[in-house]
Amino acid sequence: MAPSSLHLLTLSFLLLLASTPISDGLELGADGGGGGLYREILRDETVRRLKELGQISDGEGYLERTFLSPASLRATGVIISWMEDAGLPTWVDQMGNIHGRFEPANSSKEALLIGSHMDTVIDAGMYDGALGIICAISALKVLKVTGKLQRLTRPVEVIAFSDEEGVRFQTTFLGSAAVAGTLPESILQVSDKSGTTVQDVLKLNSFEATAAALGQVKYSPESVGSYVEVHMEQGPVLEALRYPLGVVKGIAGQTRLKVIINGSQGHAGTVPMKLRRDPMVAAAELVVTLESLCKEPHRFLTYDEECGCFTEESLAGLVCTVGELTTWPSASNVIPGQVNFTVDIRAMDDKVRETIVTSFSRIVLQRCDDRLVDCAVQHKHSAPATPCDPELTTQLELAARSALSNTMTSPGGGGGCSAEAERTPPVLMSGAGHDAMAMARLTKVGMLFVRCRGGVSHSPEESVLDDDVWAAGLALLRFVEHQNVAAAAEEEEEL
Amino acid sequence: MAPSSLHLLTLSFLLLLASTPISDGLELGADGGGGGLYREILRDETVRRLKELGQISDGEGYLERTFLSPASLRATGVIISWMEDAGLPTWVDQMGNIHGRFEPANSSKEALLIGSHMDTVIDAGMYDGALGIICAISALKVLKVTGKLQRLTRPVEVIAFSDEEGVRFQTTFLGSAAVAGTLPESILQVSDKSGTTVQDVLKLNSFEATAAALGQVKYSPESVGSYVEVHMEQGPVLEALRYPLGVVKGIAGQTRLKVIINGSQGHAGTVPMKLRRDPMVAAAELVVTLESLCKEPHRFLTYDEECGCFTEESLAGLVCTVGELTTWPSASNVIPGQVNFTVDIRAMDDKVRETIVTSFSRIVLQRCDDRLVDCAVQHKHSAPATPCDPELTTQLELAARSALSNTMTSPGGGGGCSAEAERTPPVLMSGAGHDAMAMARLTKVGMLFVRCRGGVSHSPEESVLDDDVWAAGLALLRFVEHQNVAAAAEEEEEL
Repeated sequence: MAPSSLHLLTLSFLLLLASTPISDGLELGADGGGGGLYREILRDETVRRLKELGQISDGEGYLERTFLSPASLRATGVIISWMEDAGLPTWVDQMGNIHGRFEPANSSKEALLIGSHMDTVIDAGMYDGALGIICAISALKVLKVTGKLQRLTRPVEVIAFSDEEGVRFQTTFLGSAAVAGTLPESILQVSDKSGTTVQDVLKLNSFEATAAALGQVKYSPESVGSYVEVHMEQGPVLEALRYPLGVVKGIAGQTRLKVIINGSQGHAGTVPMKLRRDPMVAAAELVVTLESLCKEPHRFLTYDEECGCFTEESLAGLVCTVGELTTWPSASNVIPGQVNFTVDIRAMDDKVRETIVTSFSRIVLQRCDDRLVDCAVQHKHSAPATPCDPELTTQLELAARSALSNTMTSPGGGGGCSAEAERTPPVLMSGAGHDAMAMARLTKVGMLFVRCRGGVSHSPEESVLDDDVWAAGLALLRFVEHQNVAAAAEEEEEL
Repeated sequence: MAPSSLHLLTLSFLLLLASTPISDGLELGADGGGGGLYREILRDETVRRLKELGQISDGEGYLERTFLSPASLRATGVIISWMEDAGLPTWVDQMGNIHGRFEPANSSKEALLIGSHMDTVIDAGMYDGALGIICAISALKVLKVTGKLQRLTRPVEVIAFSDEEGVRFQTTFLGSAAVAGTLPESILQVSDKSGTTVQDVLKLNSFEATAAALGQVKYSPESVGSYVEVHMEQGPVLEALRYPLGVVKGIAGQTRLKVIINGSQGHAGTVPMKLRRDPMVAAAELVVTLESLCKEPHRFLTYDEECGCFTEESLAGLVCTVGELTTWPSASNVIPGQVNFTVDIRAMDDKVRETIVTSFSRIVLQRCDDRLVDCAVQHKHSAPATPCDPELTTQLELAARSALSNTMTSPGGGGGCSAEAERTPPVLMSGAGHDAMAMARLTKVGMLFVRCRGGVSHSPEESVLDDDVWAAGLALLRFVEHQNVAAAAEEEEEL
């Protein structure tokens, strides 16, 4: 699609959206579930499937599903069956991503990709990632059930990415970066905590595990029109605004560091306090300092580091976390010899994030010098902030508004229509990384956020209202329909 | 032995020591190893056995041998064979302690027990514990080789205690406290990290694992005359004083705490810094505060806590350590929900230690309140400072001086005699806990410290000079001989 046709296309999309009654054919439940609007598929079945997937875990009594783990393989089978139930031919690529794609006959159109990730953190909730995959499958299932799937003029593909959280290999987006073609060959040699490499894991699961196979996972930019993703917000904004859905204007940039501190291991009873070179206290001091640095950067910046970029807004989006800290040898009566910890720094503004990373790295070396311990700061991952495509964002916003005005869930909760229902859905920044970040290297991206309780995520306490799940599925359905309507209009225009 | 006879006994011991040439029969190596003084047994073989035992590990590439672990069972077999080689009948009691005892015919004398522990910390050195066991076996082997063992008039027993470090069950002295009869029955229900209880482990290894069996391990105070232990110093004092051996006047008291902090688990990218209830930062703050509290207690004490007990000397012996810190769920992109850490506080002065424990517990609750996280402080272990018996200490001091004046290792290192060799061996306090602490509940205790390199212990870097091992073995040999000579004198006196 030439850039010049973009505006015209959007315009025709908006006109179509305005002129086509949103209710067209949809309230009349082909699912026969009562309540219309495909409530049985988009809400009840979607929620059932979320719960089912949330039970497939490598942990006992908690949810954990990491890259190509035994539970991930079981989940793959289940997701494939759901994709096939939605009428989509499926395959698993050489990085373990699951694809379900509808390909119209004789279409040369760029594909619309819809996806999210199937892996989880440790002790996870059941919505993070899974919500986006299952909502997309449900939306396509509605199209199949209503006989509209075969009438789509543009290829539509759902992808369940094999790794986004990066828990196992301490590196994110193994799945989506492979599809975007940005995963380096060297990834094959990266090891997990047990010393198993990505290559080992792939081979163990009968994948080819070669650079060439990795290359085959990549999509050509010409074949893809856009990527959209539905995801729970994982933050408190939508709940505070009492709005079930929001559109995302961009995703915060992220840096992951690993700090390694080596001190002098010794007996807890015999080495006087003054003679210690204790990496535990050094690490603790740095954890506390990191928090202060992110809350009040100006207290710590040197003249060179002063970027003038710390506005009230940029500070609001700046978050720094130590999620993992390990001690060696880890016994209560031994002064540790080594302490390692992870650092996760995110900001909407890349300059802010880079300044914090630089300052923190300097402080680490300084404090370690003071304490006579040896420190190293390893850069594990870095991603700039990712803007979403304005056109896609507008289209998602319209689809969300349309869905909300038709589902039971009006903004503010409760039944009936309110003035708020007419409001434009909120536009948010995402503090969390998403596969859309990796996919932005391949194509235009757009994201839809779904309200969650208390902003809680990466926790078994994650919660999304069933009606909000429904609204998300319906918005995605609207979006896919109108993408195809627009594609048809574009085709007509081209003729 | 009546108290009134104590002074007389000591006097006769000192007279005997002065009048009996230390060289009597000993330079003339029955071992034929050249260099005399049983160098082949007390030095070369002892060092070989230390290395052999140091290879018996549950870890690959590092030394770890915890209570009744597979490696501990293999070590048991080896230690039994060494005890038998020294002419001692052996048995393993119901807590896995190994005993090797020479029982003179028709003796009603109280036994001299000599022991140390066979368990280790994780990533341990090869001297901690093992040195005391093997030196004792070697000293008795010399007696056997010289035909003196059968002439002993007092029972002498070497004990290798099954647990002193407390790594597996987070509670120290499982072995020696059982012998002393102070181990509560409830210990059977204590669990390790995997949920296995002490009882499970005992049963798995075919021990009875009942309260009654535990009771049988206990020695009656009437049957035991004293307990002595050779141990590496694990501190830097002897090295600084250039003295291979030192005697111990007492062992510092110790408190072990576990601090449990529960916060609000969440996504590292989406929860604003201001809204976090992060147990990681709370824990880090407490680790830093603990260090400050131990270095400068007056900065933190309340009016009520001011004990007037913090002298320069008491501060020098006060040490506080966080050796273990765990995070849950432990992923770099998750704000932890729970962080736990251990605290080890030791002091020569019980009042000082108790004050620090009280103040720290108060500070934990205060800081956790400030950060809106939930904290609990569990008391895992507490032991008062243990004084060594002055008589035994004097006897060990004379034995050490005698050994040093006869071995190659003169104080200050290097060959030949120096004026220093005539000096009284240094008298130290022990910052480390030892089985002697537990045995002090049963009988009089005495300890001999052996110089180590850099004061390093609980580390693979532990190092003791071969000649210092020799000196320790020879001192123990002298001590046993003179204990028996004294016993004989006592017997004569009684007749």
